Amino acid sequence: MSNEIGLGIIGCGTIGNMHADSIARAEGCKLVAAADIDEGVLKALATRHGLERTFSDYHDLLTDPEIDAVTVGVPNHLHAPITLDALAASKHVFCEKPIATTYADAERMANAAHAKGRRLVIGVVNRYADSVNQIKRIVESGDIGEVYQVNIKFKSYRSIPGLGGWFTDKSRAGGGVMIDWGVHFIDLVFYILGAPRVLAVSGQGASMLARDPAKYKFLDMWAAPPNYSGVCDVEEYASGIIRTAGPFINFEGAWACNINEKAMYVDFLGADGGIRLDYGDGFTIYGQNAEFLYETRPVKKDADAYVNEFAGFAASVLSGAPNRADIEEVLPAQKILDMFYESSREGKEIRADR
Amino acid sequence: MSNEIGLGIIGCGTIGNMHADSIARAEGCKLVAAADIDEGVLKALATRHGLERTFSDYHDLLTDPEIDAVTVGVPNHLHAPITLDALAASKHVFCEKPIATTYADAERMANAAHAKGRRLVIGVVNRYADSVNQIKRIVESGDIGEVYQVNIKFKSYRSIPGLGGWFTDKSRAGGGVMIDWGVHFIDLVFYILGAPRVLAVSGQGASMLARDPAKYKFLDMWAAPPNYSGVCDVEEYASGIIRTAGPFINFEGAWACNINEKAMYVDFLGADGGIRLDYGDGFTIYGQNAEFLYETRPVKKDADAYVNEFAGFAASVLSGAPNRADIEEVLPAQKILDMFYESSREGKEIRADR
Amino acid sequence: MSNEIGLGIIGCGTIGNMHADSIARAEGCKLVAAADIDEGVLKALATRHGLERTFSDYHDLLTDPEIDAVTVGVPNHLHAPITLDALAASKHVFCEKPIATTYADAERMANAAHAKGRRLVIGVVNRYADSVNQIKRIVESGDIGEVYQVNIKFKSYRSIPGLGGWFTDKSRAGGGVMIDWGVHFIDLVFYILGAPRVLAVSGQGASMLARDPAKYKFLDMWAAPPNYSGVCDVEEYASGIIRTAGPFINFEGAWACNINEKAMYVDFLGADGGIRLDYGDGFTIYGQNAEFLYETRPVKKDADAYVNEFAGFAASVLSGAPNRADIEEVLPAQKILDMFYESSREGKEIRADR
Amino acid sequence: MSNEIGLGIIGCGTIGNMHADSIARAEGCKLVAAADIDEGVLKALATRHGLERTFSDYHDLLTDPEIDAVTVGVPNHLHAPITLDALAASKHVFCEKPIATTYADAERMANAAHAKGRRLVIGVVNRYADSVNQIKRIVESGDIGEVYQVNIKFKSYRSIPGLGGWFTDKSRAGGGVMIDWGVHFIDLVFYILGAPRVLAVSGQGASMLARDPAKYKFLDMWAAPPNYSGVCDVEEYASGIIRTAGPFINFEGAWACNINEKAMYVDFLGADGGIRLDYGDGFTIYGQNAEFLYETRPVKKDADAYVNEFAGFAASVLSGAPNRADIEEVLPAQKILDMFYESSREGKEIRADR
Repeated sequence: MSNEIGLGIIGCGTIGNMHADSIARAEGCKLVAAADIDEGVLKALATRHGLERTFSDYHDLLTDPEIDAVTVGVPNHLHAPITLDALAASKHVFCEKPIATTYADAERMANAAHAKGRRLVIGVVNRYADSVNQIKRIVESGDIGEVYQVNIKFKSYRSIPGLGGWFTDKSRAGGGVMIDWGVHFIDLVFYILGAPRVLAVSGQGASMLARDPAKYKFLDMWAAPPNYSGVCDVEEYASGIIRTAGPFINFEGAWACNINEKAMYVDFLGADGGIRLDYGDGFTIYGQNAEFLYETRPVKKDADAYVNEFAGFAASVLSGAPNRADIEEVLPAQKILDMFYESSREGKEIRADR
Repeated sequence: MSNEIGLGIIGCGTIGNMHADSIARAEGCKLVAAADIDEGVLKALATRHGLERTFSDYHDLLTDPEIDAVTVGVPNHLHAPITLDALAASKHVFCEKPIATTYADAERMANAAHAKGRRLVIGVVNRYADSVNQIKRIVESGDIGEVYQVNIKFKSYRSIPGLGGWFTDKSRAGGGVMIDWGVHFIDLVFYILGAPRVLAVSGQGASMLARDPAKYKFLDMWAAPPNYSGVCDVEEYASGIIRTAGPFINFEGAWACNINEKAMYVDFLGADGGIRLDYGDGFTIYGQNAEFLYETRPVKKDADAYVNEFAGFAASVLSGAPNRADIEEVLPAQKILDMFYESSREGKEIRADR
Repeated sequence: MSNEIGLGIIGCGTIGNMHADSIARAEGCKLVAAADIDEGVLKALATRHGLERTFSDYHDLLTDPEIDAVTVGVPNHLHAPITLDALAASKHVFCEKPIATTYADAERMANAAHAKGRRLVIGVVNRYADSVNQIKRIVESGDIGEVYQVNIKFKSYRSIPGLGGWFTDKSRAGGGVMIDWGVHFIDLVFYILGAPRVLAVSGQGASMLARDPAKYKFLDMWAAPPNYSGVCDVEEYASGIIRTAGPFINFEGAWACNINEKAMYVDFLGADGGIRLDYGDGFTIYGQNAEFLYETRPVKKDADAYVNEFAGFAASVLSGAPNRADIEEVLPAQKILDMFYESSREGKEIRADR
Repeated sequence: MSNEIGLGIIGCGTIGNMHADSIARAEGCKLVAAADIDEGVLKALATRHGLERTFSDYHDLLTDPEIDAVTVGVPNHLHAPITLDALAASKHVFCEKPIATTYADAERMANAAHAKGRRLVIGVVNRYADSVNQIKRIVESGDIGEVYQVNIKFKSYRSIPGLGGWFTDKSRAGGGVMIDWGVHFIDLVFYILGAPRVLAVSGQGASMLARDPAKYKFLDMWAAPPNYSGVCDVEEYASGIIRTAGPFINFEGAWACNINEKAMYVDFLGADGGIRLDYGDGFTIYGQNAEFLYETRPVKKDADAYVNEFAGFAASVLSGAPNRADIEEVLPAQKILDMFYESSREGKEIRADR
């Protein structure tokens, strides 16, 4: 293998385009081909990136010997089958988050990667964000003392994506705001904390504002325009707690709810100090010295985490060294999603050792 | 009985003074006597209110035939014994919140009141706040639809009271921020919601910032100055969830923590609208009409809820009619405190039907 | 003339593209041709909009008989010469704001339009924003009483555009944050207020943070990347007052300054109520009724003001009726810019009747 | 003279009580006597502080040989006559801010103090606030570079004091929010900046919300309850600019206005950094180092500035050394008030050298 990996894009929608754009700027990556069942988006991406090889069936792309690795950027329920096919074809895989719609599928994917000796990296991009890594170093240094509580907020007012499309269809998405936004926040917390053992999850999801999609009022909609004949049976609101061998975690998330407060942050409460990560926008440290309490906030721009994650992917494929976003690292977050949905369904706390 | 009740103050500290000041302005109330083991505070209160009868032993006050009712404003662990003594003396009782340090004591107090046919009202003053009652009417009207989620915040940065005194001594206070501040918030939520059945509580308290009182940095301290030779073994931080037959409830509270964000509010999330109660400072409604979403906020001053609660107490004593703050009404909040502390101790969700 | 006007784009940079995109969606508009001296951006725009006629010299475009009107989206100092050329060629003109780099040029342009009987409309897009028009109607209705004070904020932390390029070159831009952002705010205020007579302006601009462009720290830069060998001799900060026959106006604006507070709003203070326009993001009304004070905020999405302004432009060209953004309407704002720069230079208040 | 000065309180209202309380805790001060024409407040203060000598006529107090100095805490229009009487009696004087209702009176007072060789110190308490002095040191150190702009906000929503009493009566108060609140802010800015020469003032006051006192809606009122048969002819809102030989200053203040935004701060904009003083609540520094921009905020409690100002007063009386709040230091702020009122009346900028 050279000092570059050949990459094939599977899925040429919004996510696939972001993958391609980042790959084009990431060291060690060479974009080779793309696949999508939709001719329109496939051609658009190929034109933009000067790709000659395009496939309407991703199985054909998997036979291309110049392709060392593929990216999987498709609706959630297709993550597992496509990833398994790619691994079976001995390709390394970069699969967008969430790993899959269920923990069982995620485990199957991890096992397949292990069996085939191929790298399977998940698109939990925050692990490659400068701010997140700076906080990780501060927490690990002991500067803020024992972290005993973490509070996670990912709340918007009117942000249900692609209402009536796959995003709001439980059978294709696996869930709503928890599996779409929550996974990012939970995973980065576990990354920063060094993956404390999960003991229990108790939470509740709510699907209240768009049961009748036509009654949902909004200003804008991302991902896709509303399809009023589609379904919305996933939670647009979620809240609950996670018990771990380390800190106690409280979370609240909303694609939409009837309180107009945007809140996207994670608070790390330590015995000697605290840190608020403003999601995607730096962080503030609350500390103390011999004389007084203080707050301080560096204002600087993170490097592009999307480019970094692909450079990191290529490096780990080339070297065989572990990647901080290897599927094994992300399994705890995926497990928590499963436990959350079970807890919400059963109306009770779910223990990890049940 | 005339159209006025004679009242004796038991406990002449900060709370007792607030009781006396409010009673002096409340219809149907006549301040008659006061008791405290501390001569200084007793005299000060008596002078301020022109009281001739003062007692260093409250047992003596209880023998006064002109006293129809007493107020109990003493450290939490004395609520139960003094209330039971007062009921035994056939006095009606206004007991400051929390009811007691344990639910078992609270039940004993309720039973005693029932047995003696005397009114036992708890100082959950928010039940007499205009804003709270306006929200209750809006919720009951159905205007915001089914309320499926309630979020409670009572968070400060540096507000541990009387560090090293009874407030931070588990044996005398029964707990920390949950029993001191949390009880107000939980009780008002149950009042507004019409007391949905409690199914389970899962939470965690933390006592991290003042284990060594001398290491706790602060700007001001209320209730009393710090006593560095005292103990702090109660939670200054708490978070968790409450499952009910109605909405799912998420709460976070802090006398102190290492994130400098003051947050004192309750969010009611309904299917058709939402309400944020800014604790002690009005509320905002998030609604929608045929055309658009909106927020609206009345800016007006609530009447004095402390005066109202004593007028309400007197009225219910005189008429024998139920009081919205009768001990039976407040038992659910007290029960939740017990379940919270058990959950925090056991590290698991506590079911009401266990 | 049919029910559609033929339009030629002059200037195919960021602004020109926005013009073209909006025109493509605006009723009464037909995009016919484009001109730019930069072949690259010209071709890109032409391809995107399927234009067959492109010109590297705008003079050639002006000879095209199918073109009824042109848009001028070029550096500020070229607004006047190109507009005058277009009018000379009997074209109607839609010229981006600011009108010109000086009031003298602006007057020349107005006179030329008048002389040629052609419409000259300025891109003060806020006159076509729903929120602005709703506020105008509320103010005119008298609901908030006499408006006696207006406060304008257009402050950012690190937003100098294209440092070292034409934006920061006084000879080409005419000024900095006042002529670039301020003109929008001042013009919308005069639109809402019904153009009260201007009596005096007193203000001060500051060019402090990027005198040495290499020393200016930033996170992102819009318009263009920094050119460290260019100049920055325009004000990145401005503040002052405007005396009118109506309200007193206070303004502060910053492309950049050393206080990290983003503030983009206009407050209208009336005797009976007030309105805060959150620039580009709706508004809040502060009112009172017989019982109480209140705040209320509609949350709805404005229609696309850019599309509306071009539809309005086409309609006024077709009908010959006045346009709310005719150059005469915008002259007061341009006059204020001149007075501001003179005041800043002279260090004193400039009277309109001097 | 011993190491303590004997003090007499003139004026036993809210301010007089604050004086007395602070004096009781200030080194070098001994409270000896008090005077007020209102027997009630006089007795209350005397009882609280165990004073034996009380006078209903302050002239009698001025004959007391044990009194070295007096405090003047009375309605603004009485500052000058009482201070002049006290100086005439060879007493040192601590006069509450503003110095007087006019600059002419203020000059007379300064001249009298000079002529009698007595200290005349003004109650501009912020000069004794820790935060203000820390900012002064930072500005003087050059750390934030040249300060080119200062923005002052002292805005409330509904805070007209004692409506219909002396506070809102131009003949007794001299003005409204500018002379009451503004003087504090302007004076502290001049203190921090080292008193740059004033060149011009241009501003406008508005008296709109309580012309008919009965129509003014509020929640609370400080100083005194409303007197609906009184007048309100002072400005409750003010805004304008101050040109100096140093920074350009923009100010806005409101006892009341129809935008519900409380804003009490001063921004110092420097070429290399900035500082926001949150009035009475610490400050934030916006700086930069070799790598990045940052904000930092010490959270600590200032010592009691009121106690400090009296200790400072006593020290300067005892030593004869200048006091940072000597009347000469405060004259520029008083001058600006005069210029503001003239500017508001005349509708134009007032030059210092006119």
